Amino acid sequence: MNYRIITRIIGRILCVMAAFMIPALLISLFQGERGAALALLITIAASAGIGVLLALVKPTRHGFFAREGFVTVGLAWIVVSLFGALPFFISREIPNFMDALFETASGFTTTGASILRDVESLSSGLLYWRSFTHWLGGMGVLVFVLAIGPVTTAESGSSLYLLRAESPGPQVSKLVPRMRSTALILYAIYIVLTILETVILLLCGMPLFDAVTTAFGTAGTGGFSIKAASLAAYSSVCQTVTAVFMLLFGVNFSIYYLILIGQFRRIFRNEELRMYLLIVGVSVLVIALDILHTYQSFARALHESFFQVASIITTTGFATADFNAWPELSRSLLVLLMIVGACAGSTGGGIKFSRFILLCKSAKRSLAQTLRPNSVKLIHMDGELVEDETVSGVRSYLVLYFVIAALSMLVISLDNFSFDTNFTAVMACLNNIGPGLGTVGPMGNYADFSLLSKLVLTFNMLLGRLELYPIIILFSPSAWKK
Amino acid sequence: MNYRIITRIIGRILCVMAAFMIPALLISLFQGERGAALALLITIAASAGIGVLLALVKPTRHGFFAREGFVTVGLAWIVVSLFGALPFFISREIPNFMDALFETASGFTTTGASILRDVESLSSGLLYWRSFTHWLGGMGVLVFVLAIGPVTTAESGSSLYLLRAESPGPQVSKLVPRMRSTALILYAIYIVLTILETVILLLCGMPLFDAVTTAFGTAGTGGFSIKAASLAAYSSVCQTVTAVFMLLFGVNFSIYYLILIGQFRRIFRNEELRMYLLIVGVSVLVIALDILHTYQSFARALHESFFQVASIITTTGFATADFNAWPELSRSLLVLLMIVGACAGSTGGGIKFSRFILLCKSAKRSLAQTLRPNSVKLIHMDGELVEDETVSGVRSYLVLYFVIAALSMLVISLDNFSFDTNFTAVMACLNNIGPGLGTVGPMGNYADFSLLSKLVLTFNMLLGRLELYPIIILFSPSAWKK
Repeated sequence: MNYRIITRIIGRILCVMAAFMIPALLISLFQGERGAALALLITIAASAGIGVLLALVKPTRHGFFAREGFVTVGLAWIVVSLFGALPFFISREIPNFMDALFETASGFTTTGASILRDVESLSSGLLYWRSFTHWLGGMGVLVFVLAIGPVTTAESGSSLYLLRAESPGPQVSKLVPRMRSTALILYAIYIVLTILETVILLLCGMPLFDAVTTAFGTAGTGGFSIKAASLAAYSSVCQTVTAVFMLLFGVNFSIYYLILIGQFRRIFRNEELRMYLLIVGVSVLVIALDILHTYQSFARALHESFFQVASIITTTGFATADFNAWPELSRSLLVLLMIVGACAGSTGGGIKFSRFILLCKSAKRSLAQTLRPNSVKLIHMDGELVEDETVSGVRSYLVLYFVIAALSMLVISLDNFSFDTNFTAVMACLNNIGPGLGTVGPMGNYADFSLLSKLVLTFNMLLGRLELYPIIILFSPSAWKK
Repeated sequence: MNYRIITRIIGRILCVMAAFMIPALLISLFQGERGAALALLITIAASAGIGVLLALVKPTRHGFFAREGFVTVGLAWIVVSLFGALPFFISREIPNFMDALFETASGFTTTGASILRDVESLSSGLLYWRSFTHWLGGMGVLVFVLAIGPVTTAESGSSLYLLRAESPGPQVSKLVPRMRSTALILYAIYIVLTILETVILLLCGMPLFDAVTTAFGTAGTGGFSIKAASLAAYSSVCQTVTAVFMLLFGVNFSIYYLILIGQFRRIFRNEELRMYLLIVGVSVLVIALDILHTYQSFARALHESFFQVASIITTTGFATADFNAWPELSRSLLVLLMIVGACAGSTGGGIKFSRFILLCKSAKRSLAQTLRPNSVKLIHMDGELVEDETVSGVRSYLVLYFVIAALSMLVISLDNFSFDTNFTAVMACLNNIGPGLGTVGPMGNYADFSLLSKLVLTFNMLLGRLELYPIIILFSPSAWKK
């Protein structure tokens, strides 16, 4: 294990995080929030100080492979969550450190699950920081470092493994041959879309601070809102704009790159995109019909259904209605959408559409082989052959996913909440959604869980965002063997 | 598709079913239950008549392969469920045919889910038939025909494919080279264990009729009881005896064969058995501690925990306590045990232990390969190499399983019962358990579901018992192509 390069990268990430905290500090100073400003200042100083020290470690040898990539990503996210939680804790705005850690990990992992009973009592500086963690976590902390950081020759091999370990989806699509350029393109698209949403929200009459934080929450498919009522606090137009942008951020970003370079044929061939749009359409319709009797008109039901489906399938977690109170069909359908999640290569969580398509194709193949044992069938996706190794990896992923979900649920159930609360709390954290059903419904929060449950759920969020391996590997002895 | 052999086999199965209905007829006559006796007589005449006609069809060509095996098994189980439901319907003891079909399919598939609000109002003849369906379905209707039926040369190749399609588990273990002998040995062990349980229950003071029907329900890991209170109607000793036998019937029957031929070394090497006993032990302890405060003593809590764990993990579904009212940890743990199920090659349902062990091993391998992409690792079980094809088949199975569960749950949720009711109703039917949580808890029943839900759940039971493929293939167009 190349500890020196790992240490160096983590140091650099701490510095980046400290830099990103400065706007929050400025907002606090501007608003005269002395406690928050002091807490942010201390955190910035500590993170930058420790970060610089770690970044000074000189690598003595080359060599950075899959193992180092996973370990770096896993450690980096834990470190960033711990340091990112400090402002909440130091300012006493979230007096319990486990709560502050939960909230911050929820931010970085773009989950949006909150332990706050009254979000509006937070200072503006920390509200900004809380929403910004979504934005940073959405595209990935390491992808950012990769895109802008200086790279020494000893580290030059690291980018592929880092991007692979941090990016969501079963296959990493390199847009261009150089990883660094890919990271830059991704961030450029991300920034442009975020600014676009902010501007449109402003034009629709949302205040600047609200528009920026909502755009952060949408871009990262996070779901933290600065209002207790979430998006229900804004006009229908703002809600629709947000819903459309949620769906846009749930699409594989390589689609936008294909648009930029004019390859429209390849977009139409993208099976994941087609399936994503189809499932969104069908779900919106089914739920609209199911909730019709509780709303005045079909248009209203369609509006609420569209927003909630977009929010859940992209694993964002904004809400305009208490879907926990909807009929069982809608509730169950939303729970299924939670598990499926968004497209691979997007900022959304969940198991991802492309994994599901691969799984269904491989199940279909297995059925055909049961009928005709000697037939050989290959799996294609988007017109290209998928290697058996990828399919096998996807299925192992699913097994690990369900084992982790099952064990987490057992621990959570010690708190004796209802079955739907426990089940959806784990699903909402593991899939980086935020709200679930029951106690953790869109109008509820995670405050009443025990310390142990909050710790387990925090790990679920990290496991979900990093797609299991980086976190599992941290705890697997074989990874640390020479 | 060799329709003639399929028709012939189904005809023979109808005749066997008619013969097995005779004891129920005799009981009805002896008890003077005229309605039930008449209904049984009509059904026996109809089944035997149609059965003989179908069995007379002469096969014109050889050729019976995997495809024919699956189709035969799928069709046979549907036909048997339809005819087996007739006595309940004709006697008007279950006036709705869908209800009668649900109850019968629940019996044959050894699920034990009931639509009866008052089981004790049924006539003895039909109570006997209802419990006997468990016994017949437990080991398999076709395995029976295979064991005792005459085999023409044209059909001689069919046995392997039939046994494969009807037997539970990822791999069929041939005990002896000839399939017919394997089927005979399995039935012999099954009959001996059933008689043993009946005798011990009699010695413990249970009345003869109760002992026989309880033994039927235990042997098939079914769960129909002739008492409304299920096993709570009997003494603690009878409960413990039943619990032990449930666990025995949840073990792979090849273990008993190994005992008979004295190969104890291979028994100790059996990973599934070790894991099964370990999980049972741990679960019993955890639940006993969790429910301690509701029972007077630890011994009492241990007794209730042991019975319920044995009943759920073997997917039997007898109950001595309302585990729906237990704390959430126990409820969640029981739901997980429902899904895991019993050992492969037993009469129990669920995904099966051996599948889980294989899945975990393959996930572990996948993790190792993520760390060291060039390493090659093989999967062993019980000291023997497992082919990649088997592992792949198991994973496809899991995918199909979850897709079916998800879609079924959506349909069920139209009835607007609670989330835990819908979730566990599907799980309890798909895994052939019987009781779930909420409305379908051990003290509840399936009576209030809509016709559509009952139909879906009936298919879930058949899908679960036959391990998906035989039923899916019936509805897959490619199976019917030339």
